[in-house]
Amino acid sequence: MEDTEPFVVIGGDAAGMSAASKSKREEPEREVIVFEKGDWVSYAACGMPYYIKGEVESLDDLVSITAEEFREERDIDLRTRHEVIEIRPEENQVVVEDRDAGDTFEQTYGDLLIATGATAVEPPIDGIGLNGVFTLHSMDDADEIDDYVSRDGVESFGIVGGGYVGMEMSEALRSRGLDVDVFEALPHVLQPFGEDAAEVVEDHVREKGVDLHLETSVERMTGDGSVTGIEADSEEYELDGVLVGVGVKPNVGIADEAGIEIGETGAIATDEYGRTNYENVYAAGDCAEATNSVTRDTDHVPLALTANRHGRAVGQTVAGSPTEVGEIVGTAVVKVFDLEVARTGIVDHETAEDAGFDPVSRTITAESRAGYYPGAEPIRVRLTADSETERLLGATMVSEDTAAKRIDTVATALHAGMTVSEVESLDLSYAPPFSPVWDATLTAAKVLSSTL
Amino acid sequence: MEDTEPFVVIGGDAAGMSAASKSKREEPEREVIVFEKGDWVSYAACGMPYYIKGEVESLDDLVSITAEEFREERDIDLRTRHEVIEIRPEENQVVVEDRDAGDTFEQTYGDLLIATGATAVEPPIDGIGLNGVFTLHSMDDADEIDDYVSRDGVESFGIVGGGYVGMEMSEALRSRGLDVDVFEALPHVLQPFGEDAAEVVEDHVREKGVDLHLETSVERMTGDGSVTGIEADSEEYELDGVLVGVGVKPNVGIADEAGIEIGETGAIATDEYGRTNYENVYAAGDCAEATNSVTRDTDHVPLALTANRHGRAVGQTVAGSPTEVGEIVGTAVVKVFDLEVARTGIVDHETAEDAGFDPVSRTITAESRAGYYPGAEPIRVRLTADSETERLLGATMVSEDTAAKRIDTVATALHAGMTVSEVESLDLSYAPPFSPVWDATLTAAKVLSSTL
Repeated sequence: MEDTEPFVVIGGDAAGMSAASKSKREEPEREVIVFEKGDWVSYAACGMPYYIKGEVESLDDLVSITAEEFREERDIDLRTRHEVIEIRPEENQVVVEDRDAGDTFEQTYGDLLIATGATAVEPPIDGIGLNGVFTLHSMDDADEIDDYVSRDGVESFGIVGGGYVGMEMSEALRSRGLDVDVFEALPHVLQPFGEDAAEVVEDHVREKGVDLHLETSVERMTGDGSVTGIEADSEEYELDGVLVGVGVKPNVGIADEAGIEIGETGAIATDEYGRTNYENVYAAGDCAEATNSVTRDTDHVPLALTANRHGRAVGQTVAGSPTEVGEIVGTAVVKVFDLEVARTGIVDHETAEDAGFDPVSRTITAESRAGYYPGAEPIRVRLTADSETERLLGATMVSEDTAAKRIDTVATALHAGMTVSEVESLDLSYAPPFSPVWDATLTAAKVLSSTL
Repeated sequence: MEDTEPFVVIGGDAAGMSAASKSKREEPEREVIVFEKGDWVSYAACGMPYYIKGEVESLDDLVSITAEEFREERDIDLRTRHEVIEIRPEENQVVVEDRDAGDTFEQTYGDLLIATGATAVEPPIDGIGLNGVFTLHSMDDADEIDDYVSRDGVESFGIVGGGYVGMEMSEALRSRGLDVDVFEALPHVLQPFGEDAAEVVEDHVREKGVDLHLETSVERMTGDGSVTGIEADSEEYELDGVLVGVGVKPNVGIADEAGIEIGETGAIATDEYGRTNYENVYAAGDCAEATNSVTRDTDHVPLALTANRHGRAVGQTVAGSPTEVGEIVGTAVVKVFDLEVARTGIVDHETAEDAGFDPVSRTITAESRAGYYPGAEPIRVRLTADSETERLLGATMVSEDTAAKRIDTVATALHAGMTVSEVESLDLSYAPPFSPVWDATLTAAKVLSSTL
């Protein structure tokens, strides 16, 4: 009976549309309905800073498949501007609000996927509602920031938060010719990358003309109607606009109200198939937890690949081929001006100790190419291992040349549970234009291994 | 008693000097003697094409550590222009010719490392001895070619062989403004990379103005005293110079004469510690075999990382800490004009079948970065797997953007013995400047996995 009822998806971005597409491809006869509360579907949110920077011409370029294509080519019943306001898991129903018609209706499902994503956190700071104060999470946000930055008289921006968005937007706004002040309450930017990588980034952004205020809490946004500045640690900064980028939180409201289990991370708890505590209700993407292969614990890392992969697996499962969503190791990269900054696994000792390891780390600086070859740049690699089992736990890398894709070697080694000396023995590629004879990863493993 | 006798090394390049340095560091009191028949030690042969191209100013830039430094800072008794002409393993002796003094002497050893390297093959073609016909294997070769190319009237070069040296030197000589004809007897260039990658390379070098003659055998070099052309498949080509690059053969003469076992590949057979059939005689580098982790068979892949690594391990072993030399997976990369060409593992079906596999391959073309991000280039990835066990066997990659370091992910997966679906599940890095959401490796694994 379930199979004759439609597969219903809440949320039309990466996880939702991947699931819808995959299930339709595997089981074309089954109806697939996607409710998306906004106008945009399946867009590359990670590309928005490059739109504002001016490297991507149109927001439409960030859309990989349009709503029309989903409807007509993939035969998915995609309804934009439709918000699911209630889930009734005992009745296999959702309640949907049609935002244009202004009415609500019930929709029965055979299987349900919650792919409600995450929302930019808006901290309770005075003045956050002023004109000229933005977050960057939706395509509409990107459009509004781009418009605002283009206005006459907008010559400076404050950025609250030195995370991914803060660092990427520093680059974008400097490129647009603005003065940029970044305020970070913690001692370092890019918290998930650890202090060692962060220090390299901090020097770099300062060289690029960013005023970086670390360990500095923003107390209020000043202004009357429109923002005119920031007050932080009792100092006043005159600013023409403010971007708040202090992280995201998973959208779990309707799930929580429906009695769907929320995990310790604050995201929806799921099993290895992406299933919640209801057998026919799944969750995937930025609203859901994942299993970290290094810590063997649940984790919440709201990134695009995981959303796509988990969504696709759920689509396959509901179409009748149970497919595990897979595990993550927490790989992430970010471009900050000319730097490639990369991480994978566990990079801080506290997390490692919490997971039962006895961590030891070593940092090396090598060259990205043969030292005599043009374009060779320093690459800083920090590896962390468990001193008892000698198993590799994580890495960070920073360089102006090919750090981003080098982290994948370590990510693969983490999935395989390799020891440091196994990593040291890897037959990695060498030619003078691409690497020294000993790739930086091997050199780092050699140094760490000799201390174990 | 052995330990009081010196550690003697034959050959002062990567494997030899790595072994000498490591053993001296671990056991400073033991005498280490290196006999090198030429003048140069520890140089980056792979950098020579870039010297000829003009990107590396001086040959000295290719020397990582000078002979003086080895002698004075590392306390190694390094004797250049000393050739070992005989090994007497039963007597723990070598016979050495001092090329300057013109006399010979005997040297007793406790442990011996044969690191005699390889030599460029000189095929028995008429006219190979003419002036203006070169191979590129030693620093003196590089110097002579550079001089010759600088002469007035040298406007064209023929290259015999479309392997690594042939492709790298095509780029170097075109950059110097020469007309270049490449003659390859096989149907494709870069034989170890397989037909699929080769075809991309062939189109590319032709676009760069190289005249490529495939399935064309060179019959003779013409000229009287100095070369004036090549005759190939009964056609004549007027050329001002010729480079012969048809591969290398391991230098095993004195080892073979001494009763040291030569393996099926033609290189010296060794165990997991780099030991030959004599307990205190080791071989490492381009003259020695290695174990291929994918085929589980002996292999001969004369590349720099293996030479360095095996030499270092032997140095550690003779200093009293037995250390395995490690296994290879056959990772190799080469830059050909703007292309990065990479391989690892088994890429041709015949080799896979010989190793007992039932190979299946799929090729995809993806983008190197998010499609909307500036600088995105096509990347072609071909993966090969065993259809029975679904284990990944090998890969090739070709792109103008970051193929070289992407191959390391697959190399790591091969070391770990991963299946295609395990590769498909890897948590690889994504940010628009560096990769699409699904890295090309993941997309290729997805496509191959769906056919298994």
